[in-house]
Amino acid sequence: MIRPLARSLPMLALGGSIGTPPEGIRAEVMVVSTFDELSERADEARGRIVLFDAPFTNYGRTVQYRMQGAIAAARAGAVASIIRSVTPYSQQTPHTGTMAYADDVRRIPHAAITVEDAEFIHRAIDRGERVELHLRMEAKTLPDTWSRNVVAELVGSEFPNEIVVLGGHIDSWDVGQGAMDDAGGVVVAWEAVRLMKELGLRPRRTVRVVGWTNEENGLRGGNGYRDQHMDEVDDHVLAMESDGGVFKPAGFGFTGSDAARAMVEDIATLLDRIEAGAMGPGGGGADIGPIMQLGVPGMGLRVDGTRYFWYHHTASDTIDKLDPHEVALSVATMAVMAYVVADMPERLPR
Amino acid sequence: MIRPLARSLPMLALGGSIGTPPEGIRAEVMVVSTFDELSERADEARGRIVLFDAPFTNYGRTVQYRMQGAIAAARAGAVASIIRSVTPYSQQTPHTGTMAYADDVRRIPHAAITVEDAEFIHRAIDRGERVELHLRMEAKTLPDTWSRNVVAELVGSEFPNEIVVLGGHIDSWDVGQGAMDDAGGVVVAWEAVRLMKELGLRPRRTVRVVGWTNEENGLRGGNGYRDQHMDEVDDHVLAMESDGGVFKPAGFGFTGSDAARAMVEDIATLLDRIEAGAMGPGGGGADIGPIMQLGVPGMGLRVDGTRYFWYHHTASDTIDKLDPHEVALSVATMAVMAYVVADMPERLPR
Repeated sequence: MIRPLARSLPMLALGGSIGTPPEGIRAEVMVVSTFDELSERADEARGRIVLFDAPFTNYGRTVQYRMQGAIAAARAGAVASIIRSVTPYSQQTPHTGTMAYADDVRRIPHAAITVEDAEFIHRAIDRGERVELHLRMEAKTLPDTWSRNVVAELVGSEFPNEIVVLGGHIDSWDVGQGAMDDAGGVVVAWEAVRLMKELGLRPRRTVRVVGWTNEENGLRGGNGYRDQHMDEVDDHVLAMESDGGVFKPAGFGFTGSDAARAMVEDIATLLDRIEAGAMGPGGGGADIGPIMQLGVPGMGLRVDGTRYFWYHHTASDTIDKLDPHEVALSVATMAVMAYVVADMPERLPR
Repeated sequence: MIRPLARSLPMLALGGSIGTPPEGIRAEVMVVSTFDELSERADEARGRIVLFDAPFTNYGRTVQYRMQGAIAAARAGAVASIIRSVTPYSQQTPHTGTMAYADDVRRIPHAAITVEDAEFIHRAIDRGERVELHLRMEAKTLPDTWSRNVVAELVGSEFPNEIVVLGGHIDSWDVGQGAMDDAGGVVVAWEAVRLMKELGLRPRRTVRVVGWTNEENGLRGGNGYRDQHMDEVDDHVLAMESDGGVFKPAGFGFTGSDAARAMVEDIATLLDRIEAGAMGPGGGGADIGPIMQLGVPGMGLRVDGTRYFWYHHTASDTIDKLDPHEVALSVATMAVMAYVVADMPERLPR
């Protein structure tokens, strides 16, 4: 016996999703915890809605179900796929984000439900019930339109052609306000440079703040920046990004040569007194990735990430989640590092 | 210029709310932070929707806006009232709950919006914008229907007419699953008694577990229990309740004579090794309140309440929020106290 769920589920269509037909798709749910489980039970998926109920381990691993879920489900013959939202914590909060389709399989609707509902459906099926969902989505992909990076700079006093660039991305998903992802990051970088100006500080090298556009849907801003500034990429001394939410800062991650690392570690000790002097490996950011691939040393602000994925790509990513004191600490952290690298007599080596 | 909000707000009608007309109510929002502010600016409220944006201090104080908000707003001539949900934390989570109307003022619609939206509207108005809301609610109060307390007991071996009663309430608001409020409390009490039975323990006095019905909407279960057991109220040795969510237990609050307190404090030391041996003042619970008023000593389970109001009366009050180990600790805490009081040679004095 199929017992229809007698309520509507909080749900978000995933980026790139096609709409369902106006009457929706009504089908029985098949639940799996992993891609491997879907492979093993692929013969059960035909005509069904596949639910990927993959508990959060880390973002990189868990987000695979959002990215690749529709492809895997379609290959098995499913009519639609839904995922448990990518988060370690939920208050009935669906999370959106980008996803992929493949050319050789049908583009089926793909959506995210809440952790609570994914577990609820999973429990029901585990105890032998059949769960049917009526899926209706009105998401559609609109044609591209123009948007622009926002750029401001404090021109260097001695080496104006040498650049320290810092920023975040000004776009966000169309839920909430994108306060953590990544308006806060842009404000922190912007405020760091604004404070230099207000204090009458003009470093030897140019400090440039950028609000990169369209990170979420294809890195268009970061790629565009690289293309437009190709002639000065070699003079980018350092690229810094804040895109992990604004919480209490711990320091940075850094990607560059050993010689450069020794110098930035030395500078970072200035931040020890606000407990932000750490300099870990593997630093960077989505928006500065394109110029880092051309050899620019990269640095990403590291913050206490405990709650970042609670808000990431949700309606609850709103300005109240930012703590003014933690924002101020993050500004100080970015400002000190950017200023010293821009102002020191020698150029940061590659 | 009025700028209409171009999106729908997550909202919950509050208990007792009447519906709005089918076409809804469209009016400008007036925001106040306190009842006092509404009194001072009462002349601005006529024809408006009053938003009470009162930040959470403690439940008792903040819930007054849910309870009394519609009365105060109607007295000032408002057409509807909305409140900031009663919670210290929000992920766009509206909270419902009971409310009051008064006979001498109009019964206007009353609803709860999220903390995020209350602050958003408040900020907009503070910077000079006018905010208009189109309020549509389909809430209605249905006629009463029958429900029943659920009662089970382990009859005492020596003084079967003397009773230790423990329990929680089996109803919840019609959002989420009521897992914290108060299914978890019922399960903890039930499990405490079930374990006694499984272990072959039969205390001298009767241990009775009760799932009280309809606590949320008028204490009908607790009042009914008192009325139906009036002839044995004097033989109720102790009444215990768990209605603060199931988290890590700290002990109990107790209301009774000094002589009884000395004894239960002594018993509670058995729980020190699981850090649940505290015995504070002012213990009790909504469901056992009616018999406590007739002289029965009362005890309420105390737990770490940090997150209780995150879930209270919301769609996110679901079973995943309970930690199995913390549930087990709470069961142990209730079981030890109930068993010793029921089994000790002397009767707990009044």
